[in-house]
Amino acid sequence: MSRWAPDARERLETAALDLFIENGYDETTVAQIADHAGLNRATFFRHFADKREVLFGGQDVLAELFADGIGSAAPDATLNECLEAAFAAVGAALTPDQRAKAVKRARVVAANIEVRERGLLKHARIASSIRGALSERHVDDLTARLGAEVAMLAFSIALERWMTSGNDEPFRIHATAALRDVQARAAELGSRS
Amino acid sequence: MSRWAPDARERLETAALDLFIENGYDETTVAQIADHAGLNRATFFRHFADKREVLFGGQDVLAELFADGIGSAAPDATLNECLEAAFAAVGAALTPDQRAKAVKRARVVAANIEVRERGLLKHARIASSIRGALSERHVDDLTARLGAEVAMLAFSIALERWMTSGNDEPFRIHATAALRDVQARAAELGSRS
Repeated sequence: MSRWAPDARERLETAALDLFIENGYDETTVAQIADHAGLNRATFFRHFADKREVLFGGQDVLAELFADGIGSAAPDATLNECLEAAFAAVGAALTPDQRAKAVKRARVVAANIEVRERGLLKHARIASSIRGALSERHVDDLTARLGAEVAMLAFSIALERWMTSGNDEPFRIHATAALRDVQARAAELGSRS
Repeated sequence: MSRWAPDARERLETAALDLFIENGYDETTVAQIADHAGLNRATFFRHFADKREVLFGGQDVLAELFADGIGSAAPDATLNECLEAAFAAVGAALTPDQRAKAVKRARVVAANIEVRERGLLKHARIASSIRGALSERHVDDLTARLGAEVAMLAFSIALERWMTSGNDEPFRIHATAALRDVQARAAELGSRS
C-alpha cells in the first residue's frame, strides 16, 4: 500500500484494536500492527510514540473539543451551560463508527493494567483541559476543578450507556442525560442534608 | 543491620524518597534503595512489587481507611456525614511525619510521567474503594460515584493545603475545610442556574 496513505493513522488504530482483541495486548507487536494496516513500523512511530498511544490518540482530540466547547459558550453562560456546550462539541465527534471502537478499546483497557494507567493519564489530561477552559472564563479554581470532575464523571457514564445501548442513539443524548443525572446528585450532596 | 528489621518497609520508603529527590527517580536503582536502608534487594521485593510501588504503599492503607471510615458512620448518616467520617479516619493516619513524606512524594511524582501514571492508578483505586463503601450503605451507584469523586477532589485539595501550610495544623482541619468548600460548589453546580 502507498506510504502516502492519508488515513494511515486511522488504519493503524483499527488494526491495533483488532489485534489486541484477537491476540491480546501484550502479545501484539508494533510491527504486527503496522503489517496488519499495510504500513511499516516507521510509519507507526511517525503517528504514535509507543504501542499504548495507538489506543488513546483520540483522547487528545477530546481534550481540545471539551476546551473549545467551553470557550464557545455565551459570555454570560453558567457553569452548567458551559458543560452542555462542551458535550455538544464532543458529541459531534463521537460518531457511530467511534462507538464500535470505544467498545473494543474498553475491553483492551479492562484487560491490561499498563494500558489502564495510560488511560487514566489521558483522563487526567482531559480533566485538566476542562479546568483550564473554565479558569479562562474566570471561574474560581475550586469550581473549575469540581466542574472538570463532574464533567468527566458525566462523560464516563454517558460513554458506558452509549456503549451498552442496543440502539443507535447519538452520544449527545446520553451526554445530556448523564450531565443532568450527575447535577441532580450534586444538588443533594451540596444541600448538606 | 538485622534482616529481621521490623521497620524495613518504612526504612525502604524513606530511603527511596531521599534518593529519588537527590539523584532522580530514573537514576535510582532498587539495589541502591535497599543499600541506603541497610537492607538487601530481596527484602525490597518482599515489601514492594517494583520501584514505583515504594512510593505508593501508603495509598492502599488510605483506600482501606476511607472505606472503614464510611463503614463506621451511623446507620442513618447522610452522604456528607459518611465523607466526614472517612476524612476523620484518614486524618488520624496523616501525622506530621507523613506530611514531610507527602511533600517529597509530590516532587517525585511531578517529575516523572511513569510515576504519575501509577499515582493515578492508586488514586482511582481509592475512589473505587469509597464508591464500594458507599454502595454497601445502599447509596445508588451514581451518587456513590459522585461521592467518591467529590471526596477525592476534597482530599487532593486538603493534601495540597496541608503540604503548603507553614504551620503544623493537622490534616483533619484541612480535610474538613476542603470538604465544606467542595460541597458549597456542588450546591451551586446542582442548582442548574
